[in-house]
Amino acid sequence: MKLQVAIDLLSTADALSLLHKVAEYVDIIELGTPLIKQQGLTVVTDVKAAYPEKLVFADMKTMDAGELEADLAFKAGADIMTVLASAADSTIAGAVKAGKAHGKQVVADMIGVADKAKRLKELKDLGVSWVELHAGLDEQAQAGYTIETLLEAGRDSHVPFSVAGGINADRIGAVEAAGATIAVAGAAIYGSKDPAEAAKTLRSKIQQLG
Amino acid sequence: MKLQVAIDLLSTADALSLLHKVAEYVDIIELGTPLIKQQGLTVVTDVKAAYPEKLVFADMKTMDAGELEADLAFKAGADIMTVLASAADSTIAGAVKAGKAHGKQVVADMIGVADKAKRLKELKDLGVSWVELHAGLDEQAQAGYTIETLLEAGRDSHVPFSVAGGINADRIGAVEAAGATIAVAGAAIYGSKDPAEAAKTLRSKIQQLG
Repeated sequence: MKLQVAIDLLSTADALSLLHKVAEYVDIIELGTPLIKQQGLTVVTDVKAAYPEKLVFADMKTMDAGELEADLAFKAGADIMTVLASAADSTIAGAVKAGKAHGKQVVADMIGVADKAKRLKELKDLGVSWVELHAGLDEQAQAGYTIETLLEAGRDSHVPFSVAGGINADRIGAVEAAGATIAVAGAAIYGSKDPAEAAKTLRSKIQQLG
Repeated sequence: MKLQVAIDLLSTADALSLLHKVAEYVDIIELGTPLIKQQGLTVVTDVKAAYPEKLVFADMKTMDAGELEADLAFKAGADIMTVLASAADSTIAGAVKAGKAHGKQVVADMIGVADKAKRLKELKDLGVSWVELHAGLDEQAQAGYTIETLLEAGRDSHVPFSVAGGINADRIGAVEAAGATIAVAGAAIYGSKDPAEAAKTLRSKIQQLG
């Protein structure tokens, strides 16, 4: 399983400062949606220039203009971009088309999708590289939130999947056991007093490194 | 009815150049999602500085971190920001909370919502200022697309609504007749050979100016 760090900070400087501490422990660097909107896609270009050997994941959360937005992300240097699973099929197909043109990958973010099983099958046919089973920051803040719903959808899916939704050192084992190919950790790393130690610990808990 | 120009160009310079030609004919200036992602929220700040007397609409299409993303948009100078109607209720409530804190407005973008009537009622209760009945660029490009579905949803709704989805000089009359408070024109203006003339014509077709 690979480890992806999701950076929900708000400036390129803060993102680079965090990465200075944690990049060596992660496979994929995710630049969060608020960060991209605040800074623009130059944050992708700047991070890829600093870490050319890492995969850079632009969390575009594209809902429309799929081909255009994917093209912008890949031109900026992203290796991977996200389209919302709840977007129209034509939007997802457009993003996949741009991905093929650039030789890069498009991931469908399942945030907010109620009937997960049905959409997972459709997304596979639309040609996304993998799906992200994702509970957003707002959903995680709700009373009674548990990551188990995501893991259940993953176990039942027949597509490669990542999991994002409050993964920490206690939960990452269950994520790997559910069959995820990538674990996405955000606040557990960037919100830690010692981000390097947090990332190192998460890494050490992964049994089979991807 | 008010006239809103949606700017789906990709640079602040191009947006300002277009606005130099058309701003006098419009009430609301919308900065499109790809433009915000490409340039960052400085495009909102720059446009508001150039047109302080106009309402500036940041098409954030927020799907998560509602309060945070709305706060970023309003801090950048937006008067209005969008949250996706398909986002979690807590995301929409978070954006509305930030709107109240700033004395600004949050609009729910109905793109991709299948059961429109049900969601319209819920959105009203969540406190959005109005809803945007919206067919995206990718949906408009599909064979058989017609704006009539949006107008029908508007006629049946009991909330203030704007309409966006290929409005041009031929269609704007039907949009006003359906009861829209705002007509959003994008490509009909920015894609025209003579954007000023296109905006002026759309303006002249509105019977009751908002």
